[in-house]
Amino acid sequence: MTKKAVILLSGGLDSATCLAIAKSQGFECYTLGFDYGQRHNAELKAAMNVAQAMSDHPHKVIRLNLDAIGGSALTDSSIDVPTDGMTGGADIPVTYVPARNTVFLSIALGYAEVIGANHLFIGANAVDYSGYPDCRPQFIEAFERLANVATKAGVEGPGIQIHAPLMQMSKGEISRLGTELGVDYSMTITCYQADDAGAACGRCEACQLRRQGFIDANLPDPTNYQ
Amino acid sequence: MTKKAVILLSGGLDSATCLAIAKSQGFECYTLGFDYGQRHNAELKAAMNVAQAMSDHPHKVIRLNLDAIGGSALTDSSIDVPTDGMTGGADIPVTYVPARNTVFLSIALGYAEVIGANHLFIGANAVDYSGYPDCRPQFIEAFERLANVATKAGVEGPGIQIHAPLMQMSKGEISRLGTELGVDYSMTITCYQADDAGAACGRCEACQLRRQGFIDANLPDPTNYQ
Repeated sequence: MTKKAVILLSGGLDSATCLAIAKSQGFECYTLGFDYGQRHNAELKAAMNVAQAMSDHPHKVIRLNLDAIGGSALTDSSIDVPTDGMTGGADIPVTYVPARNTVFLSIALGYAEVIGANHLFIGANAVDYSGYPDCRPQFIEAFERLANVATKAGVEGPGIQIHAPLMQMSKGEISRLGTELGVDYSMTITCYQADDAGAACGRCEACQLRRQGFIDANLPDPTNYQ
Repeated sequence: MTKKAVILLSGGLDSATCLAIAKSQGFECYTLGFDYGQRHNAELKAAMNVAQAMSDHPHKVIRLNLDAIGGSALTDSSIDVPTDGMTGGADIPVTYVPARNTVFLSIALGYAEVIGANHLFIGANAVDYSGYPDCRPQFIEAFERLANVATKAGVEGPGIQIHAPLMQMSKGEISRLGTELGVDYSMTITCYQADDAGAACGRCEACQLRRQGFIDANLPDPTNYQ
């Protein structure tokens, strides 16, 4: 019997690689994405395309209006997305969405309960996003502990495992592994402010990290830039 | 300086009491509710009214289509709401919404980050809902641990506290305390299948627990029944 897994899939490079890793480990994959008032709507379409190419089941999208509580340049139109590169590791960037990974994993946990999956995959990465509290190993461990007291599967069943296979990988290592696993990165969108056609700005933090990854991996960059 | 708190407010008896308790402890209250595809839409209106009567700030509502992942009689129209009373403590009831409290607390945590609150209140109760994994003290403790690694306030600031003041109280004790604190329970809706005017069915599990609470507290039952 195959093991079922819920994969958080944003349509970006990291989560597409995460899906490929789960597939390569033999999991039956159910992808889940979010329409949370982010500016980069093109990534929702990218997620559908990536899921169609690689997943075992139709992509599910949960809509939630995180913009109602504000607080991030990604959902709040009164805060500018920085275009002057990375903010450095010490400060938490303004592109941080409040409690985002906590919210996304929680809903993924609900989906896992419904379909009887005991595994969740998230493309969280501690290397490139050292300023985000919810992109650290401690966060993943604390969420796994929570999942195992919060659910039927945790309390009565075999337990829930949270997988964050990209956690300690550089962007170069991620894009190299994904390429080996057959990920078509031209389908993915990483840019914080992609246009409606999905073309990337090439200037924001996410674009710069992604571009450098392809350079480090010595791979051609398939990104469609504006 | 007053301490800010986010209060999960559904419009039911428990969460209205929880808000009154937070107020009585001197917290500046921000209420948060959810429109998650539940059948009992009347409770959303009740929550607005309760917040208007007792809270310090306008009620916020987050919409999220949990029905897209299914799995509960409260959001999935293909599962009947039981009308033959409680399901007993051993089994998890079909009215359980997958990972609901985990999801709601996660979004409350995001809201708390945005407004700079370090306290969350939830009306979870281990006495009446012993079949729900996410209504137990272990769940609250695990969520508090998570919150303190997942957020700026937890990592850099004074930490996050999760308050579940109703956890060990009976329904009778809850309605007695709320009445002492001035809660107008005629505003609240507890029924799983209230009609559009907010009248309760009187038969579902939630109605029976609520009615028994008023009897145990020796209080008149102000509920509007169908």
